[in-house]
Amino acid sequence: MVYNIGQQMHQLCQELFPICRSITGDGFRESLSILKKHIPDIRAVEVPTGTKCFDWEVPKEWNIREAYIISPQGEKICDLKQSNLHVVGYSIPVDKEVDLEELQKHLYSLPEQPNAIPYITSYYQERWGFCITHAEREKLTKGLYRVYIDSELKMGSLTYGELIIPGESDKEVFISSYLCHPSMANNELSGPVVTTFLAKWISKLKNLKYTYRIVIIPETIGSITYLSRYYQHMKEKVIAGFNVSCVGDDLAYSYLPSRRGSTLSDKVALHVLENLQPDFVRYSFLDRGSDERQYCSPGIDLPVCSIMRTKYGAYPEYHTSLDDLNLVTPTGLQGGFEVLQKSIEVLEMDDLLCTSVYCEPQMGKRGLYPTLSTKTSGTHVRDMMNFIAYCDGFLSNLEIANIIKVPLWELKSIIDTLKSEGVLEPVAVHNGKSDSLIHKKTVPLELPSDFDLKRYFDMQPV
Amino acid sequence: MVYNIGQQMHQLCQELFPICRSITGDGFRESLSILKKHIPDIRAVEVPTGTKCFDWEVPKEWNIREAYIISPQGEKICDLKQSNLHVVGYSIPVDKEVDLEELQKHLYSLPEQPNAIPYITSYYQERWGFCITHAEREKLTKGLYRVYIDSELKMGSLTYGELIIPGESDKEVFISSYLCHPSMANNELSGPVVTTFLAKWISKLKNLKYTYRIVIIPETIGSITYLSRYYQHMKEKVIAGFNVSCVGDDLAYSYLPSRRGSTLSDKVALHVLENLQPDFVRYSFLDRGSDERQYCSPGIDLPVCSIMRTKYGAYPEYHTSLDDLNLVTPTGLQGGFEVLQKSIEVLEMDDLLCTSVYCEPQMGKRGLYPTLSTKTSGTHVRDMMNFIAYCDGFLSNLEIANIIKVPLWELKSIIDTLKSEGVLEPVAVHNGKSDSLIHKKTVPLELPSDFDLKRYFDMQPV
Amino acid sequence: MVYNIGQQMHQLCQELFPICRSITGDGFRESLSILKKHIPDIRAVEVPTGTKCFDWEVPKEWNIREAYIISPQGEKICDLKQSNLHVVGYSIPVDKEVDLEELQKHLYSLPEQPNAIPYITSYYQERWGFCITHAEREKLTKGLYRVYIDSELKMGSLTYGELIIPGESDKEVFISSYLCHPSMANNELSGPVVTTFLAKWISKLKNLKYTYRIVIIPETIGSITYLSRYYQHMKEKVIAGFNVSCVGDDLAYSYLPSRRGSTLSDKVALHVLENLQPDFVRYSFLDRGSDERQYCSPGIDLPVCSIMRTKYGAYPEYHTSLDDLNLVTPTGLQGGFEVLQKSIEVLEMDDLLCTSVYCEPQMGKRGLYPTLSTKTSGTHVRDMMNFIAYCDGFLSNLEIANIIKVPLWELKSIIDTLKSEGVLEPVAVHNGKSDSLIHKKTVPLELPSDFDLKRYFDMQPV
Repeated sequence: MVYNIGQQMHQLCQELFPICRSITGDGFRESLSILKKHIPDIRAVEVPTGTKCFDWEVPKEWNIREAYIISPQGEKICDLKQSNLHVVGYSIPVDKEVDLEELQKHLYSLPEQPNAIPYITSYYQERWGFCITHAEREKLTKGLYRVYIDSELKMGSLTYGELIIPGESDKEVFISSYLCHPSMANNELSGPVVTTFLAKWISKLKNLKYTYRIVIIPETIGSITYLSRYYQHMKEKVIAGFNVSCVGDDLAYSYLPSRRGSTLSDKVALHVLENLQPDFVRYSFLDRGSDERQYCSPGIDLPVCSIMRTKYGAYPEYHTSLDDLNLVTPTGLQGGFEVLQKSIEVLEMDDLLCTSVYCEPQMGKRGLYPTLSTKTSGTHVRDMMNFIAYCDGFLSNLEIANIIKVPLWELKSIIDTLKSEGVLEPVAVHNGKSDSLIHKKTVPLELPSDFDLKRYFDMQPV
Repeated sequence: MVYNIGQQMHQLCQELFPICRSITGDGFRESLSILKKHIPDIRAVEVPTGTKCFDWEVPKEWNIREAYIISPQGEKICDLKQSNLHVVGYSIPVDKEVDLEELQKHLYSLPEQPNAIPYITSYYQERWGFCITHAEREKLTKGLYRVYIDSELKMGSLTYGELIIPGESDKEVFISSYLCHPSMANNELSGPVVTTFLAKWISKLKNLKYTYRIVIIPETIGSITYLSRYYQHMKEKVIAGFNVSCVGDDLAYSYLPSRRGSTLSDKVALHVLENLQPDFVRYSFLDRGSDERQYCSPGIDLPVCSIMRTKYGAYPEYHTSLDDLNLVTPTGLQGGFEVLQKSIEVLEMDDLLCTSVYCEPQMGKRGLYPTLSTKTSGTHVRDMMNFIAYCDGFLSNLEIANIIKVPLWELKSIIDTLKSEGVLEPVAVHNGKSDSLIHKKTVPLELPSDFDLKRYFDMQPV
Repeated sequence: MVYNIGQQMHQLCQELFPICRSITGDGFRESLSILKKHIPDIRAVEVPTGTKCFDWEVPKEWNIREAYIISPQGEKICDLKQSNLHVVGYSIPVDKEVDLEELQKHLYSLPEQPNAIPYITSYYQERWGFCITHAEREKLTKGLYRVYIDSELKMGSLTYGELIIPGESDKEVFISSYLCHPSMANNELSGPVVTTFLAKWISKLKNLKYTYRIVIIPETIGSITYLSRYYQHMKEKVIAGFNVSCVGDDLAYSYLPSRRGSTLSDKVALHVLENLQPDFVRYSFLDRGSDERQYCSPGIDLPVCSIMRTKYGAYPEYHTSLDDLNLVTPTGLQGGFEVLQKSIEVLEMDDLLCTSVYCEPQMGKRGLYPTLSTKTSGTHVRDMMNFIAYCDGFLSNLEIANIIKVPLWELKSIIDTLKSEGVLEPVAVHNGKSDSLIHKKTVPLELPSDFDLKRYFDMQPV
């Protein structure tokens, strides 16, 4: 049954795959409406062409109906109907005859991958062009070619989807993915599809602590547009966030940090990956290449990092027609879903607790400890006593889990029991700015006034 | 003659070994009175049964006169007189006949160590039981066994010993060991015996800087009881402390940090072990198992760490009858004593000094420097000039010793000379809360106002 | 042409080599006047004998005209005219006959380097002596030797040279070298000669940001004397400094940190060496041995480190007659000059900038970005976008260069372009006390108020 989610996600990918999407236009709208069938509360928002967004503005809307080339032999090649990668994204309309020499200036292919159609766009410079496998390009003969692109660039709008799932706190977890890529699977149908299924799961959770802000946007211009509208609110409220991209293949797990590198998101991502997928690939922010470029830009600096399967740019099929639904698999999507799901679970569990008494509590009288002292005691008791030993009102549950080397989710029953027994009391909630914590009441115990949290962390045993 | 101390300590262990001790009762009192012959100023304190101590209360007092089993063959086995490990600690009185099946429920043995009697206690759940070698247990035949335990659980008191050795400052060094274990040698006669000889040595030291608070207690309930009485005073006054346990075997040296991990005690312990016993085993606080569980608990957080020979739980004889006076040796005790002795010396030497002039002092005119400048100069001069170079009123003697890679005790004559020459002046004393320092007067030199101590430390060359 | 500087410097070394220099006297003055031909603005300053300088005082002035020994065979040996290392520096006058046994007490040689004349001085203890190769010493026969030293110790003065090159800011870069060694080449003619050529180059630079304070002094007593006059001014103004010594051989590059270890000078030196000479030898401040002993002493703590070729004491020819103009070469001097030159360039380039807009600026509309989005983009674009991504008003250009792993000087055209395009704006200048920065106006973007610079640095990816 759990495996079913992977299959359901793969099926949704199949449904979306053939649609010709771009950063604006009807392909994006149609794709978003298909996602909406799974998450009905998502709201489609239109932002008119020409709207100023920081240093940028929303471009003209692009739509395309048909595109192909007729060879001197009368053969139809580079047909949009065969693959919507055949046309350079945002190509202007064209309908004329050109000789091979002229045509070559408008063709894009990859000599090192002769059977792949490359993915090429030209959003901010008007031009037309076709993408073609290098094998096919090499077979082109001299003669006249008819090039035909029935596209349109008009004053229209950019579309994005936004879903707010309210929780107890107005502090927010931000999840972003992008839907602007045409027929490619890992980069990028896996992101919006996994995000859709995550949203579906989150919306069914009981006692949600945080509010979830989930967006499905076009890459770059979409995140810049969205930030230009909400950055002040988000800088105040967002405590953690994930950019969801390349989460569908079966080859690796990857982590790309936020610019600052140790936000709450980063800590959560590392905790999940180190415990679930310890062989994951650890990238630097220098390897970035998606919307974290905007979310983590100077002065924005949202706590956003990325958990991926194989990172964009790190697999040969990337940005070609070879990134298809063979590369992306049900188990690949399932794995991408699960690490993000666990990250949400960790975020929701990461409270700040404190022991309610000085010294070790007497667990025996609460029935929580073996009454016989022998040479050894079990893992459960050891984890419980270790958790209590670090529960000092300064270290969060996640930090303690790291110190005592136990995945936080495996401590759930211990924490629930200790809270209901009154051995542990909550003392604080996360604040909205960064990875630090605001105390909501005083710690039960008198703690030394000179307690230096930063220093304290440095001191933990490795 | 120095070696004599090891022999004297081993002799004291032999004297104490046969006594049947527990966390309360006459065995503990008798043992403490034997230690008192060496340190007459130690004060025995009685705390009545039922006294509330944080989350705990002082249990009934337990005493035992006789215990054994009569086998169907009429043989007396598990005789307390043979080994006081034969009875589960805090066993209630029993005198009846049981068949083998019933008896088995009350027997404890170690299949993996068939010739060892295990050490078992049940302080907080009333039960009775016998401990037996697994070899002997396997030989038991069907039939009726008479089980006889002549013990008593009564409203009485818990006993501990406390010795205060006053020094110039009311800041305290805390030394704690426990005397509640019956006939075992490393864990635990080595601790109270080494502590006794340390106390004897400290009380003879001239110009003692710190006050020494030394306690001989029952483990766990004793430290909780003691803390419940003095924790506020101790949190204010104790600048360093050591839990003394497992300091008598000849196999290893070990270090177990305080919870915070870099208190003054930790720094002292590491300085001593790294210089004297560089192959020592470095444990994590997660490996804890003695009274540091209480001393370092949240909100108490005393600067207490442990320097040991082979750590409890890390040798197969631990908590069995095999932990005897063959495992603990005169040289083993001697080594345990010496690392703690050096730790006290380092603590007493760890002042905060500052050079009295800008630039290097002219050592030549003081007769402290070769007048001829040649290609090389000696170790002594190099150590002296290095010590002065870091003597800036911010780094303590211990910290400088670490930076210049010389054991602090080897710098004693250099420091004494430089102080008497007026080249170095004292500027501060340790404060009572943590490993930081309070300035008692201004530093002779103007130091930059933005001097960041924490950062400074990070900058030192490795 | 560039190589010419190495040759010019080697020629200047040749001119200076034969002069008999010491910490005072006419040899020093004559040498300084030769340097003055290259840097006419350098000012010679005289400080009278007996002047108090912190714990020291300026010694008598020493001059020497002639010195030699006449052997029993009538042969003239240890002749000052052959090598001015033959006389112990600061030898008092002597003219008498002594037997071999008496002579031996005044001879210095190196058994392990039998063909080297050692360099020996006795500034603060009056004595006379000769230095001789061990090979020659072994050949001395019994008999009477005439020892003749025509020297003079008088109330005179100590001489130093000082050159101030004013820049836009009154914050200063301090460069110090010493000219007190007699005929040795790496230690030390390379230092004052390279410093002279650096000063010449700096004085021709346009738009100099900092003021340069350059001194040519006698070692130890010279730096102490100079500091005693200017230390308060220098502690306020000097933001970085270099002690220039041993910069003429061809064998290695070396770095010796300041006492604090991470001043701006240290960061600059490491950036230059790690990028230009990654095999450089990294010393500890414990390996110090030149004027950084004074510049970095407690309470002075100027941000002064050393970039060297082969460090004093680390080559066998050190402080002997073998340290000659074969060891020091034109390419050796050239290399020493270039790492210091690059260090000055880095210092002058190390501004604090901030992006002027939120999110990535749209580079395409400024013609700074390829308009076609393909699978890869070039190094130049990547470096530019990486630089902008970290340009947050808190990280200096040098710090960003380290993070994005590009030598700062290779970013010059990118930074100039981005500034002229208005994409980056300056926000701060270095302050005078340490390696920190003062904001001269508010950062263009709202930055989070809890932004912790120290922590931020810790977070950067390795």
